[in-house]
Amino acid sequence: MGKVIIGVMGPGEAATPEDIENSYQMGKLIASKGWVTLSGGRNQGVMEAVSRGASQGGGLTIGISPSSNDKNLSDFIDIPILTGMGSARNNINVLTAQVVVVCGMGAGTLSEAALAIKAKKNLIILNWDEESILFIKKLGGSLIHKAEDPNSVLSIIEKILSSWDLEIN
Amino acid sequence: MGKVIIGVMGPGEAATPEDIENSYQMGKLIASKGWVTLSGGRNQGVMEAVSRGASQGGGLTIGISPSSNDKNLSDFIDIPILTGMGSARNNINVLTAQVVVVCGMGAGTLSEAALAIKAKKNLIILNWDEESILFIKKLGGSLIHKAEDPNSVLSIIEKILSSWDLEIN
Amino acid sequence: MGKVIIGVMGPGEAATPEDIENSYQMGKLIASKGWVTLSGGRNQGVMEAVSRGASQGGGLTIGISPSSNDKNLSDFIDIPILTGMGSARNNINVLTAQVVVVCGMGAGTLSEAALAIKAKKNLIILNWDEESILFIKKLGGSLIHKAEDPNSVLSIIEKILSSWDLEIN
Amino acid sequence: MGKVIIGVMGPGEAATPEDIENSYQMGKLIASKGWVTLSGGRNQGVMEAVSRGASQGGGLTIGISPSSNDKNLSDFIDIPILTGMGSARNNINVLTAQVVVVCGMGAGTLSEAALAIKAKKNLIILNWDEESILFIKKLGGSLIHKAEDPNSVLSIIEKILSSWDLEIN
Repeated sequence: MGKVIIGVMGPGEAATPEDIENSYQMGKLIASKGWVTLSGGRNQGVMEAVSRGASQGGGLTIGISPSSNDKNLSDFIDIPILTGMGSARNNINVLTAQVVVVCGMGAGTLSEAALAIKAKKNLIILNWDEESILFIKKLGGSLIHKAEDPNSVLSIIEKILSSWDLEIN
Repeated sequence: MGKVIIGVMGPGEAATPEDIENSYQMGKLIASKGWVTLSGGRNQGVMEAVSRGASQGGGLTIGISPSSNDKNLSDFIDIPILTGMGSARNNINVLTAQVVVVCGMGAGTLSEAALAIKAKKNLIILNWDEESILFIKKLGGSLIHKAEDPNSVLSIIEKILSSWDLEIN
Repeated sequence: MGKVIIGVMGPGEAATPEDIENSYQMGKLIASKGWVTLSGGRNQGVMEAVSRGASQGGGLTIGISPSSNDKNLSDFIDIPILTGMGSARNNINVLTAQVVVVCGMGAGTLSEAALAIKAKKNLIILNWDEESILFIKKLGGSLIHKAEDPNSVLSIIEKILSSWDLEIN
Repeated sequence: MGKVIIGVMGPGEAATPEDIENSYQMGKLIASKGWVTLSGGRNQGVMEAVSRGASQGGGLTIGISPSSNDKNLSDFIDIPILTGMGSARNNINVLTAQVVVVCGMGAGTLSEAALAIKAKKNLIILNWDEESILFIKKLGGSLIHKAEDPNSVLSIIEKILSSWDLEIN
């Protein structure tokens, strides 16, 4: 049986201090549940912070790297998947994650949010302004979940996972 | 020397009649300039309409297909590139196009707009509401060009191409 | 209706003078039939030579580039498809080509021959030694066609294409 | 620090009983060393057997799936990476694995052997006939290691890993 894999996507160099603090806390919380943390793998911004949090929380971390080697890879990645595909790897991120969380905004992050909707994944959003939330809700409808903070991200993930258990049982 | 390749992206099944009419006209206009039209290749919506317009206008059409075979391929594609990669092919669309036009809105289309910004491509937008334009401008800044109609798309492309000629000469 | 696309794969820097001469002649012959020539797009070895031949023969050339920009692209490519995917693009080469020709040997070339067999494509081989032909025939069986020279490659392609016409009619 | 990831590639439906027994044993041995086992992820042949062996040996298993969903996925995969890219994912397999083992022969397997050489990875080969070994050695030279059985695969991996430690220290 595969493990529960939670994808956390967000900006690299352009991450704000709040994006970094929130994604670090999310990594810790995801690890505390025994879930696997998936990110874009680089040693910058949200990718680095969520991997650091998950790793320090004792969790397993996967990084789907745009690169074909381990340059620019976060030190907190246990399993680096080296795609050598640049931003085309963003689609692997969202397909592989059972639930997708985005934290903060950027062009790459927005592409992942859009690809997640395309793949009909539940998408939890943190640190977006109100207009951006409204914009993405027009596309994703009930797949979109707005979270207030890392703890609320966790509650939403738990609700989604338990609804799947109900479907199976 | 490579040809000028203009990418036109937009929704498939969810395209509006206005999206389809506009992309058909764009295809014709792009062909009238001797440029190559690139799309996502499927026989639906904007992909089908822009290819039909370009083909009927005597232009060359490329379709970057998500599929590994020619099922669901538009009949108006001269050069089908069969990627077998699903939505990961969206990044090839924006890397290959010298200028990216999006016409209409959808999750796949938004991912292409975001990937275009990530790749620092000029992005011309048609048939988006005002809030969506404002949203994407926050990400793309001066790379974003709002067009009123297919003719204005053409004028913007010509301006971009001639600015590149100036840089070279 | 899509055009007939013939893929010609072979080594880059490691191509022999005979590989280069043969692929140049093949490009010319493919163009003389009005078919499109597809290659790996780089400005080296077989990729460069077949594109040069096809271009000088008045044919259309496509290059499926491993890169995300036009550095190292052959000047004889009309339609550069920029994948940014490195060697993962080899699978796009074989899916997109209706018939795959390999000329000369190398690790990348062998991967394309193997992927062509996996995709059940007819594979025509030029400039391989007898042991290598025997080896690949064990995998590809009747999909494998050994050619003696560029003219015999052309005859084999014509036979394959006309067998498809017979199936349709 | 990333974990040691050993890729084991081989045929699916076409695997022989010996391929399956050997890859099962390899999975167990890889797990006994605390290394991660990477495969193509499907519930067939070598992919299934090596994952089963590694899983039953208490090891962590990654499957780089050609599919975009978990249909046809081995039950013994802990971390399924859903690429949705078909055989283009073969390049991710070899880039991600620090050492590549192939067990048995097939078109997909040969493409992975060739891509491994292209990526300058050490390639350990089990269950190939003598002609095939000679063929691939002409391409890969000293990167190619012929193994007699699963235990000899392990010894070769250990020798490779300790040579890297020497380089670092």
